[in-house]
Amino acid sequence: MSIRIGITGYGNLGRGVEKSIKQNPDMELIAVFTRRDPVAVNPEDEQVKVLHMDEVEKYVDEIDVMVLCGGSAVDLPEQAPYLAKFFNTVDSYDTHAEIPQYYAAVNESATANGKIAAISIGWDPGLFSMNRMLMEAVLPRGYEYSFWGQGVSQGHSDAVRKVEGVKKGVQYTIPVEESLQKVRRGETPDLTTREKHLRKCFVVPEEGADQEMIARAIKSMPHYFAGYDTEVHFITEEEFISNHSDMPHGGFVIRSGQTGGDGAAGNKQIMEFSLKLGSNPEFTASVLAAYARAVYRLSREGQIGAKTVYDIPLAYLSTRTPEELRRDLL
Amino acid sequence: MSIRIGITGYGNLGRGVEKSIKQNPDMELIAVFTRRDPVAVNPEDEQVKVLHMDEVEKYVDEIDVMVLCGGSAVDLPEQAPYLAKFFNTVDSYDTHAEIPQYYAAVNESATANGKIAAISIGWDPGLFSMNRMLMEAVLPRGYEYSFWGQGVSQGHSDAVRKVEGVKKGVQYTIPVEESLQKVRRGETPDLTTREKHLRKCFVVPEEGADQEMIARAIKSMPHYFAGYDTEVHFITEEEFISNHSDMPHGGFVIRSGQTGGDGAAGNKQIMEFSLKLGSNPEFTASVLAAYARAVYRLSREGQIGAKTVYDIPLAYLSTRTPEELRRDLL
Repeated sequence: MSIRIGITGYGNLGRGVEKSIKQNPDMELIAVFTRRDPVAVNPEDEQVKVLHMDEVEKYVDEIDVMVLCGGSAVDLPEQAPYLAKFFNTVDSYDTHAEIPQYYAAVNESATANGKIAAISIGWDPGLFSMNRMLMEAVLPRGYEYSFWGQGVSQGHSDAVRKVEGVKKGVQYTIPVEESLQKVRRGETPDLTTREKHLRKCFVVPEEGADQEMIARAIKSMPHYFAGYDTEVHFITEEEFISNHSDMPHGGFVIRSGQTGGDGAAGNKQIMEFSLKLGSNPEFTASVLAAYARAVYRLSREGQIGAKTVYDIPLAYLSTRTPEELRRDLL
Repeated sequence: MSIRIGITGYGNLGRGVEKSIKQNPDMELIAVFTRRDPVAVNPEDEQVKVLHMDEVEKYVDEIDVMVLCGGSAVDLPEQAPYLAKFFNTVDSYDTHAEIPQYYAAVNESATANGKIAAISIGWDPGLFSMNRMLMEAVLPRGYEYSFWGQGVSQGHSDAVRKVEGVKKGVQYTIPVEESLQKVRRGETPDLTTREKHLRKCFVVPEEGADQEMIARAIKSMPHYFAGYDTEVHFITEEEFISNHSDMPHGGFVIRSGQTGGDGAAGNKQIMEFSLKLGSNPEFTASVLAAYARAVYRLSREGQIGAKTVYDIPLAYLSTRTPEELRRDLL
C-alpha cells in the first residue's frame, strides 16, 4: 500500500514535493491544499487535486502524512500546531533562533492528538545539523566551519530588489575559496564574516537609473551587505531571465579535529559534508519526502510527538528493509 | 557518573580507543583485556590496568560497555558473540560480505542475554554506510560513487611484503583525481576499477635484490594489483621509517542525483561526504567511543540486541541534551 501524502502550500517547495513523490514509488499524492482560489492554481501535473485549505479536515482518513510547504515566518508557526491535530506532518521550519518555541508548540499538539511531526527537515536545518552533531560527537576536540553557497539567498535578493532604481535583482552567497581551502588543509583559522562569504549581485536597472547610486546603496546596506565584500553587476533583462532564473544553492560543513594527543603528538582528522544543488527547493522537497516515509513508519509503530533529524534512526528513511541495508549498504 | 569502558585487544585500534576516552569527559577506562601476557603489554598510560582475557567475566559488574578491538578475520566472529553474553559491546567488524551472518550471531547472543551490541561501527562500514543510505533515500534517482584514500591499505601492504626480496613495504590506495572531479561536476561516468583508484607502493629492497623483478611481481599480482595502475618506488630504510610510518586514510562518498524531471527538464543535485584522516585507527576508535555512549544510553532504556548505524538515532551519540541539540545545533 502506498503512503498517502498531502501537501499544504504550493510555491516552489510544494511543487518540489509533488515532483519528488513521482520519484518514490511507495508514495502517492492525494491532494494539494492552498489558501488561494484552487481554480487559479495550476498544478505541475493536471491530474493533481487542488483544494482550498478550508477542506483539509475532511481528509483526515485519506492522508497518512501531510507535508507542510508554507513559509517559516508566518505560515508554519500557525499551521503546524493546527495540522498536527489531524495529521502526521513533516515541515522545513528554518528560523533557527525560534526552533525551541516552535518545537514546544508542535510537540504539544502532536502528542495530545496521537500524531507524529518531523520538524525543521531539509538541509539547513536538516542534513547540515545532523552532520554538525555527528562530527562533534566523533571529534570532540576540534573546530567546526559551515560555509553556504554558491547559491541564491532569498532574503538578500529581496533586499536588493527594494533598492530604488532596481527593476530585477538576485544575490548569490559565495564561500571565499581561499578560506575554504585553508580549513580543508586542516588549518583552524578564526574567520571573520568577510573572510567566510562574499556577496555577488546581478541587477537589471530601471531605465535611466543611476547605477553608481544603486551599487552604493546595496553595498552599504546594514546587516545585509555592510561587513561583506559585495560585487554589483548590471545586466540586461534578457540576460537576467536566461542566466539567473534558477535557484542553485549548497554549502559545506567541515570539522577539523585532532585525536591522540595535543599538538604534534596528535593526528589531524578532517570530516566534510557538502551539497551542490541545482535546485534548492527541489532538494529540500526530496529530504521532506524521505522523512515523510519515516514519519509514516514511526506512526504505525505508535510513536507520537515532535521529532527532529536527531531523533529518527536513518533506517526509517530507506525503502530497503533492515536486512537489505545490512547486506547491501553496510 | 562516568560511562565505564573496557577494551578487548590492544593493537593500534585499542590504543586509539584508550586515547579517545581521554577526549570524552563522560567516560573512564576500567581495564584493557589481552590474550598476550599482560605483563609484556605497555599501555600508553601506565595507570591503565591490563588484564588477561581469561579474567573478563569477573568484570561484568564493573564495565558498562566493552569496546571490541580485535581483528575481523578471526577475533571478532569468535569474541563478539561470547562477550555479548556478559557486556554491552561496540565493534568495528568490517568484512562486508559476512555482515549478515555476523549480525545474526551477535544479535542472538545479545538478545538472549539482555545486552545491546553495536556492530560494524567505524567509517567503512560506519559513517560511509550511513551516507550511502541517506543519499540514496534523499535522491532515489542517481548514481553513487565511493572512492577510498589517499591511504594505507593493510591488506595490500601485507601482499607487497610477501614478495621475495622485499624488506619493508607499504601500499597507498589513491583515488584517480580526474575521475573524482568528473563525478563532482555531476557527470555520471561508468568507471572501471583502474579508473577509480591507483596503487602506489614504497619498498625497501633486501640487499642485492633485483628491483625490476620485485616491481614486476607486485604489478602482476592477481586480485591485488593486476587491473590497476600501480607504481613501485624503491627507497631506503631511513626514508621508509621517517616518511611511511603513519596510517593516514580517508575517502569520498558522492551521490550524483537528479530531481524534478528527466534530462534537461530536471536539476542536478550532488551530495558528498569525505574524510581526510591523519590516523585511520585513531579515527575509527573515535567513532567507536561515540557509539559506546549511544550503547550505554540505549541499554539504560532497556533496548537489547544487535544494532547498526542505521538503527541508532544520532542524538544518542552526543553529550548534549535533546534541548541543547535543538537550540544550538539544529
